Amino acid sequence: MAYTLLTDISMLVTVAAGSRGRKSGEEMRDIGVITDGAMLFNEKILWTGRTDEAQNYLENTSITAEIRSANGKTVMPGFVDSHTHIVFAGSRANEFARRLRGTTYQEIAAEGGGILRTMRATRAATEDELYETGRHIAIAAMQYGTTTIEIKSGYGLTVESELNLLRAANRLRKDLSQRVVVTFMGAHDFPPEFSQNRDEYVQIVCDEMLPAAAGLAEFCDVFTDTGYFTVEQSKKILKTAANLGFRLKVHADELSPFGAAEMAAALGSISADHLLFCSEAGMDAMKNAGTIATLLPGTAYSLRLPYAPARAMLDRGLSVAIATDCNPGSCYMENMQLALSLSCVNMRLTVEESVTAATLNGAAALGISDITGSLEMGKYADFLILDCAEYSELVYHFGGNRVSEVWIAGKRTV
Amino acid sequence: MAYTLLTDISMLVTVAAGSRGRKSGEEMRDIGVITDGAMLFNEKILWTGRTDEAQNYLENTSITAEIRSANGKTVMPGFVDSHTHIVFAGSRANEFARRLRGTTYQEIAAEGGGILRTMRATRAATEDELYETGRHIAIAAMQYGTTTIEIKSGYGLTVESELNLLRAANRLRKDLSQRVVVTFMGAHDFPPEFSQNRDEYVQIVCDEMLPAAAGLAEFCDVFTDTGYFTVEQSKKILKTAANLGFRLKVHADELSPFGAAEMAAALGSISADHLLFCSEAGMDAMKNAGTIATLLPGTAYSLRLPYAPARAMLDRGLSVAIATDCNPGSCYMENMQLALSLSCVNMRLTVEESVTAATLNGAAALGISDITGSLEMGKYADFLILDCAEYSELVYHFGGNRVSEVWIAGKRTV
Repeated sequence: MAYTLLTDISMLVTVAAGSRGRKSGEEMRDIGVITDGAMLFNEKILWTGRTDEAQNYLENTSITAEIRSANGKTVMPGFVDSHTHIVFAGSRANEFARRLRGTTYQEIAAEGGGILRTMRATRAATEDELYETGRHIAIAAMQYGTTTIEIKSGYGLTVESELNLLRAANRLRKDLSQRVVVTFMGAHDFPPEFSQNRDEYVQIVCDEMLPAAAGLAEFCDVFTDTGYFTVEQSKKILKTAANLGFRLKVHADELSPFGAAEMAAALGSISADHLLFCSEAGMDAMKNAGTIATLLPGTAYSLRLPYAPARAMLDRGLSVAIATDCNPGSCYMENMQLALSLSCVNMRLTVEESVTAATLNGAAALGISDITGSLEMGKYADFLILDCAEYSELVYHFGGNRVSEVWIAGKRTV
Repeated sequence: MAYTLLTDISMLVTVAAGSRGRKSGEEMRDIGVITDGAMLFNEKILWTGRTDEAQNYLENTSITAEIRSANGKTVMPGFVDSHTHIVFAGSRANEFARRLRGTTYQEIAAEGGGILRTMRATRAATEDELYETGRHIAIAAMQYGTTTIEIKSGYGLTVESELNLLRAANRLRKDLSQRVVVTFMGAHDFPPEFSQNRDEYVQIVCDEMLPAAAGLAEFCDVFTDTGYFTVEQSKKILKTAANLGFRLKVHADELSPFGAAEMAAALGSISADHLLFCSEAGMDAMKNAGTIATLLPGTAYSLRLPYAPARAMLDRGLSVAIATDCNPGSCYMENMQLALSLSCVNMRLTVEESVTAATLNGAAALGISDITGSLEMGKYADFLILDCAEYSELVYHFGGNRVSEVWIAGKRTV
């Protein structure tokens, strides 16, 4: 693939981390801005520096490159959305509107609504339909700058339906311009068939689903919280998954301080996600284990819950990632730029911290920060050209779309 | 202009209000949905009804129309953004980022930042530059569904600079596809030249600016609040404006309960805007006078202020409108769909109330609900085709763009 030299970048935001592959606490403030920057890439990045150094570099290395000007715009790594549930079927728009009119969750659940509505529609859907829903959302996410997207199963809750979701996700991995990472989440909730016999469902997840899902998903995720999977049940599933070669993730302490962050840390989970009610002990355990704290501010916003204690996490030196949690129930939102805005305004991250959280640390939470998430030599050229001269505009000028071009592995996709 | 019949509209949201031209309190819940709807229009709307009645109507009236299918999508009135400050110069992105890093407003103000930064850049800008900024933002707003936009002056704070802003706004009125309503707001703040002699600035507004602005603006707006214009100063300006033929608006009680809503009501102002700290007496006065409460949730969000007491206003039977307040300082956001989301999630409006507030009542707040803001016979065909079958998706699926087509006066513009 031929080389391109992108020049005249007002601010080249590299988020470079060298061999560390993630940033923690105070490090997240340094996003490595090169003013009047330039970047040389084909599929991968060969060089970054100042525009006035670029010609020299080309001459010394005898590389020929097509030269493109960024015309004084900002360039940054593409967003890595490390937590989504975008393969599903059915709409819960009407349910959402009714809740705003005063109908309670309990009333909606009592009539078979909520996640069960999505589950029924998902079970009834074909793989093609699931694929199309995911495709539609992933492409919308790409318009707003998402170059890598994680996709979880978890709305089928039977062996066959979970596999259907994973197959749809794997077709997306193959077809989309974006990088796709697939997660098995058969332990997203208990299906109604097992509401009186939850341990039996846990056994099915371990004995039937996980072996069948191996090869179709890299991660296994469990919803460990009040009313969902107990720590004991979660451990059983996650240990089985680890033995089968899955890497681990946990929906942790979203609804209550449940000890889920502590468990995630103890099991070597790559990340614990949500964490609205994470305890201080949970944060300390994550810090010691190197577990990434993946925060999902869109969900706190949409459910009117308190936000995760992001500042306390950063002050402790944790690695924080931000993702959308895009899903048909609690947060139907695929826009990483809005996740940044919510992080800065409502979780009090700085622009720099939120940019690190949404790029490098998102990639680290998927175990792929060696190939994407920052603009450094050897990584894929997954980057955004913003329509502005300063990266701060991403959060300052909010609610629209600051992304004017998206490039993935050196090819322009938007 | 030839007629078009748009058919197969899953939900035709008319927000019809008949001769009332606005909705108040409980009325705002009724957005007049016609399922499987159709709409016949040229520049203006001739008929709305059910798709299966449309053919009959055409035959009875001998009208020929081009038939277009909406393919089961939702149609609703275009958004009327009745409060913006989109003509200005200069960026405050860096200032915004610094505030997130902990720099205080006071520190930024002490070094000449804040609104003074925008004022200096605006005074130094040409009319063309101001026009281009406004044009860029208005077009972005249109992509998200804004078919009518109000534009205020107020960053020049000299006679010549305010006129420059008004001329730029009037060129936008002429050139943009959207309807544009222009507001003079020389009393947006006190310029530094008059910081020690505020009454003298008030005199200049009354004696020089207002007479020069007549003909260039339909409305006059004043920032009545702690640290800004006193009720006495505001009254003087607004009464002078009314005598010159301006209609009135007030930035009221944004920062403190200042009696500004009461004043707006007493002076017959068409709306009082912001109202975060509006008192109960203020609400009662507005209710009695028919003053529209224009709420700007993006600003409360961006400044981390408490939201306006929207539910208390609706319970009292006020007419509530929603707008963006798009401006370079406190809320750089032009997306009415996000304003709806913030209204529903953080001000507890229902989807139906927020739709009424963002269309019909916005038009009423600009005095043009006889020609736009709802889809009824005789009004301009200013409407949106959403990418979804249910209007609730506008708020349910948030952070992106649900608008797939924008039509203004019967012509497609997006």
